Amino acid sequence: MDNSIVVQPLTAAGFAPFGTVIEAPESEGESANSGTARRWRNVTQLELGACGGTSEVSIFRADPISLPYHCNRLERHPFSSQMFIPLGAHPFLVLVADGDGPAPSTERLRAFRTNGAQGVNYRRGVWHHPLLALHCTTTFVMVGRTGPGRDFELAEFAEQTSVCIRTF
Amino acid sequence: MDNSIVVQPLTAAGFAPFGTVIEAPESEGESANSGTARRWRNVTQLELGACGGTSEVSIFRADPISLPYHCNRLERHPFSSQMFIPLGAHPFLVLVADGDGPAPSTERLRAFRTNGAQGVNYRRGVWHHPLLALHCTTTFVMVGRTGPGRDFELAEFAEQTSVCIRTF
Repeated sequence: MDNSIVVQPLTAAGFAPFGTVIEAPESEGESANSGTARRWRNVTQLELGACGGTSEVSIFRADPISLPYHCNRLERHPFSSQMFIPLGAHPFLVLVADGDGPAPSTERLRAFRTNGAQGVNYRRGVWHHPLLALHCTTTFVMVGRTGPGRDFELAEFAEQTSVCIRTF
Repeated sequence: MDNSIVVQPLTAAGFAPFGTVIEAPESEGESANSGTARRWRNVTQLELGACGGTSEVSIFRADPISLPYHCNRLERHPFSSQMFIPLGAHPFLVLVADGDGPAPSTERLRAFRTNGAQGVNYRRGVWHHPLLALHCTTTFVMVGRTGPGRDFELAEFAEQTSVCIRTF
């Protein structure tokens, strides 16, 4: 079995099972600010209120990794979505996996590379890798949940099932 | 009376009366993601729940303006904060005014230029100008409020009190 996958460009359609790409949609949007701007409303849902939760905004500054990258863990937040927006024009790597069970399927892992002008919002409960900056240390705005309950699950892969992420 | 003000670089201290600069603080933060990142929690407050409100995420794409710029209006949201993060490394212009009264004081208008890796979160009720991109059309993520009530006030300045925003 070849435990490797190839990084794909991040697109709204490809990422739809996992959440939202934060970018201007292809539709026309509505006129805003006296005609000086276009606006697209409700581009994603912040799912932060479960179990008495509320919003929390953090800044993350992530060290860069290089490809190929050895993925041996994923995490998820069973109560909440989590949105990351880079500050500056910095591409980053997004690793996600299908599966609602107690552990993600490494065979259904997907790897996406952003174009430098995209953020992501992981849907509630979606398995994802912690931040993976590329090329340079990158600062991100995170909009997530704080509140009661254990809103964090970690899945670590045995060495023989870890996945090698390769460049395209 | 000289109705003109000079744009200043945006700093956390200078912007503190109006809200939060969204950037990595100067403090060390905490270790995160198995030591591969630094994290700063609760860097700003999203004030979105008043009067039955909830969060709403929009994308804005704003046309650029050039300096000097003639400021003849400000707006505010009496129920809510409003956060803007640029997608890409694009500086933009931030115009805000002191004052809790029914109209902002043009004599207390302040103009800031971001460094391209900064967002802002306007505190609830702070008078501010709609998005002002510089140099190029710029896409922004906005995290604001949707819900009951009229969460919008507009102040238009008479021509003789409008303010000229000049470059530094």
